[in-house]
Parts: sequence; C-alpha cells; structure tokens
Amino acid sequence: MPSDFLSPQTSIVDSHPSIPSYADILAAAARIAPHARHTPVMTCQTLDERFGARLFFKCENLQKVGAFKFRGAANAVFSLSEEEAARGVVTHSSGNHAAALALAARLRGVPAYIVMPSNSPAVKQAAVSGYGGKITLCEPTLAAREQSAGEIIARTGAVLIHPYNDVRIIAGQGTAALELIDEVPDLDLILVPVGGGGLLSGTLIAARLAPRPGPQVIGCEPAAADDAYRSWRAGRIIPVEHPDTIADGLRTSLGDQTFPIIHALVQQIVLAGEPQIRAALRLVMERMKLVVEPSAVVPIAALLEGTPRIAGQRVGVILSGGNVELSKLPLE
Amino acid sequence: MPSDFLSPQTSIVDSHPSIPSYADILAAAARIAPHARHTPVMTCQTLDERFGARLFFKCENLQKVGAFKFRGAANAVFSLSEEEAARGVVTHSSGNHAAALALAARLRGVPAYIVMPSNSPAVKQAAVSGYGGKITLCEPTLAAREQSAGEIIARTGAVLIHPYNDVRIIAGQGTAALELIDEVPDLDLILVPVGGGGLLSGTLIAARLAPRPGPQVIGCEPAAADDAYRSWRAGRIIPVEHPDTIADGLRTSLGDQTFPIIHALVQQIVLAGEPQIRAALRLVMERMKLVVEPSAVVPIAALLEGTPRIAGQRVGVILSGGNVELSKLPLE
Repeated sequence: MPSDFLSPQTSIVDSHPSIPSYADILAAAARIAPHARHTPVMTCQTLDERFGARLFFKCENLQKVGAFKFRGAANAVFSLSEEEAARGVVTHSSGNHAAALALAARLRGVPAYIVMPSNSPAVKQAAVSGYGGKITLCEPTLAAREQSAGEIIARTGAVLIHPYNDVRIIAGQGTAALELIDEVPDLDLILVPVGGGGLLSGTLIAARLAPRPGPQVIGCEPAAADDAYRSWRAGRIIPVEHPDTIADGLRTSLGDQTFPIIHALVQQIVLAGEPQIRAALRLVMERMKLVVEPSAVVPIAALLEGTPRIAGQRVGVILSGGNVELSKLPLE
Repeated sequence: MPSDFLSPQTSIVDSHPSIPSYADILAAAARIAPHARHTPVMTCQTLDERFGARLFFKCENLQKVGAFKFRGAANAVFSLSEEEAARGVVTHSSGNHAAALALAARLRGVPAYIVMPSNSPAVKQAAVSGYGGKITLCEPTLAAREQSAGEIIARTGAVLIHPYNDVRIIAGQGTAALELIDEVPDLDLILVPVGGGGLLSGTLIAARLAPRPGPQVIGCEPAAADDAYRSWRAGRIIPVEHPDTIADGLRTSLGDQTFPIIHALVQQIVLAGEPQIRAALRLVMERMKLVVEPSAVVPIAALLEGTPRIAGQRVGVILSGGNVELSKLPLE
C-alpha cells in the first residue's frame, strides 16, 4: 500500500517509532494520578458570548506548582527505576519545569539538581529551593548551563530530564487533554499554547492518536516567538533567534522529539500579538477571576485576533499556568 | 421557663420575629437556583500546612458579577410580586450590590435604578451599565443619595433594595454557607468577612439555626473599620466613623436588621490589620491562583495574625468576591 494511503496516525508512528503512543499517555495518567491534581474545567459566559462558541478551560494554573509542567515531571520521575531514581534527576531551566521537577523528585524522595543562570530572579530560585531542589548557579549562557549539568551528571549519575524534548515529559503533558476530553464530550477543537512543544505534542497524541480520534488541535504561539509556526510551514525546525514576548514560557524552540509529532498531527498553528496577549490576560483575570500567566492566555489572544474562527463550536482551551509576578502584571 | 434556659436560636427568633429563618434560606436557595452559580469549593495544601488545619474555600469570587452579592440581589428581585417587580428596583450603592441588582433585574426583565455618587470610578459605572442598570449620578453624600433614591421611588414606584439591611438580602446571602455546609461535612467553623453584616447574618442563620446546628461562625473585620467588633462587644450598634481600609467592601456599618442576628449568634468577631490584608491578598492570589478582592481575604488576614486559632480544625472560608483593579493590586 503506498504511503499516501496511510493515515497520519500510522505514518507518524511508523516513521518515528520512539514517539509516545496513546497508551503511553494512559500509562502516564495512571502513574501520576496519586501525585498530580485532577484540575477543574471552567466555563465563562462572557467569553462564550464574545466568541459565539462554548469554551471549556482546563485549569492547569491550579495544577501543583501552578503549571501543567508538573504532569510531565511527575511522569518522568516516577518512570525511573529504583536504581536510576536513587541517583537523582537534573535539569537546566529557570521556569516552571525546574519547580515541577524539584517537587516531583521530593515526592519520590530523591534529589533534584537544578542548574539556573545566575541572573534568575530571586523569586524563581526561592520557588525551586522551596520545593527542595538543589540549585547550581551558572553563567547565563546555554553552554554554561549544559556544562554545569554535565558536571553534575558526571559526579552523581543523575538522570537528565529535559523540559520538553523527552518522551516521558510529552506523555505526561498529554494527560491534561486526556482529562479534558474525558470530562467534556464532543469537543470540536482544543487550543494549546506552544513553546518547546511538549504540551502541544502530548495534547495531539491524546486527541488524535486515540482509538477513536477526538478533537482537532491548534497550536497558539506569540508572533514574537514564532518558531513553531515557521517550522510547521517549512517542514523543518527553524529555531527562534530573538524571542521578545511577555509570554516567557513560550520563548523556547521546538525540539527534535516534539517537531515531528506537531508537524504530522496539528491542524494549524496560529499567532498572537503582544497587545492581544496583554488584553487576554486582563480578560481572563477580570472575567474568570483566575490568576494566569501570559503564556496561558495566548490561545485567547489568538481568538481576539480572529484566528481561528470558532463560532458555533465547542472548544477546549488549556490554561497552562498561573505563575506571574502580580506586582508587574503586563496588562493592556 | 426562665429565658436563661432558652436556646439562643429560640430567643433570637422570639425577640426579632422579622429576622429570616432557616426555612427562608432554603426558600432563597430554591428561588435563586436557576440564576446564581453553584460556586466550587477549593482547597490549598500550602495554606493547610501553614495553619495546621483543613481549609475549605467557598469561591464566591466565581459567582455571577464576581461576588456573593448576586445571591441576595437575586433573592430580593425574584421575591417581588409581578406587580411590584414591574415597577423596578432601586438602590444607592457604588459597589458589588449595584452590579448584582442590575443583573438580577435584567434577568427578571425589569428596570434597576442605581444611584451612584458622581465621583464613582468609571469602571464601576461601566459595570453597572454593562448589566443594564439605569444610573443616576448624585453628589457624593448620603443625604444626596437618599434624596435621589427617594425621587426615583416617587416617580416610578420602584422597590428599594438595601445592600444588606433587608431580610430578603440576608436570606439570599445565607445560601453560600448552605451550599458549603452541604458539600463539606463536619466543618468546625466558618470564617466570614463582615461589613454591613448581610453575609455574616445569612451565614449565621444557615449554620446555627439549622434543625441540627452546624459549625460555629466567626466574623472577620478590618481593624480600620471595626464597628462590628465594637458593636458586638458593646451590645449596641456603634457605627464606624472614618473607615480607612483597603477592604473597600467592608467600610459600611451594621444595620438594625443585621446587628441582632450577629449579636445573638456569632461566636466571635476578630480583627485584621492592613499589612495582613495585603499579605493575605498576595497569598491567595499566588498560591490559590484566584483573583480576589481585599475584602475577601480578611479572614485569612485574621489567621495570619493568629486569631482565631484553628489548628486541627476543619474550617470553611467564604471568599466573598473578586472585583479588584488589577493594575493597582494592594499587595504586601
């Protein structure tokens, strides 16, 4: 049978045998269930009226550590063998993944080594140490981070857990959409913010590789960090060079684990401007009374720009996180 | 039988036959059910650990118009006869009650006349007109407000609905505690912010005048607007003269309908300082990821000051509202 006749589901699995399957998402859900929060789904009449649609918000800002990142980190940490876990885990990140990995490791009772640039805000360092992470500060360059992580691995044998370019992380992030699809029947569409692509990849697998494929999935990205959009159009990874967006969680570029999944399965990637992100932040905080971070509202920002059109549809939105400095809210 | 042997429940009902009964709260719950939101109850591990207790937050910030006030307003508006309702309702308020009454009236399809001081912030006027309220601006004095309301009543026959000193309002506000007690069994205590006393009175009736009396209730008040505390201690209404608190919803004084209920049934009234209110605001927004207004966190602020002591107890907290100007959050 010529490959043209293969469904995308088959072709993606065939050409990338290492990518997580729908069964991996189910396994991740069972693995993290004792540790992660089953977050609520909320609705908002004002937003429904504004967009002429029914919106269902999966509130990952209410997840442990305030972001979906805990799902992937918990799945990765609890996937390790006893012997691997005992040596600890390591990552270089200054964001939600660092806090999530620290907490997941603490829950398993193993060390988490977090390499952070020396210019990380004190509040982020405090969050990581508050969850028991062992911080190593380094120069704020990628080379310095990788060198510090390498030294820790050489010394301790700790397992590197990348923030998104890791099948265990991708499978864990997919559990948010799994819960959403389970709770809200007949969704037409799910909107997901995209940075490194872990959440989008996991959502795509949960929605499109299910035995009975579910809603379409659209990735939503800041126009000022549009590497996923350009990579999706070009058919190859085009890293972002100077991301300049208030959506600080989405400044990263797709990885070689996330790009093929996204390229094969996503319906579309849409862009949102900075004023729309600020307006969406105000809208969600004022109307839904939820504290969210700028990255989380990029799907609403895209809707404010008019793309995608969702009138008459039932649309899931993953509100990815709520870690924002309240005294400096970037509001329109 | 000497009155010493009467239960407080009996004596309060005997001495004030006009106060709402538990049955009135049940009736209010049935009346507003098609209109009000059954708000979720949330928990927070960080706060539980901090206070060594189990806290259950009734999220009235997620109520329609962003505050519990919609419960009382809806109960009042839907209690009116067809003939009364047709003439409309009127109030003088610049806060959540005004928006709540406007929306309740719109849902019943009758006019709401809202008298607001001419110096009300534009955002509050916009909220009221957004819900269809007909605004009359007047000089920012109580006399001018009452005169304006009187003129509207003379002209239209509209029914005055006071923000708290009204049995229909009190019964409506009690439905929040009714839902909380129904959802969370074996509460030891409920903490409630107190301004004019409508929410506290309704909560007291729901908790203490139930056929099988439930949790004790403690009122929580800003020290800078401590009229309820002083009135409770003195046994008579002592109005606040110069309330100077960021908890703008709690600057009002008890009324002659709310004071007797509170005096007879409340376990205690505790005070919270302004720095503690600001710290509590940050704590709830950062940790629970909920947008709340300063008035809503006064119970948490009291706990931060150490009174009441709740270690080992199951404690309900009514998060009364979430209408706050986000660009001017008064954070510690």
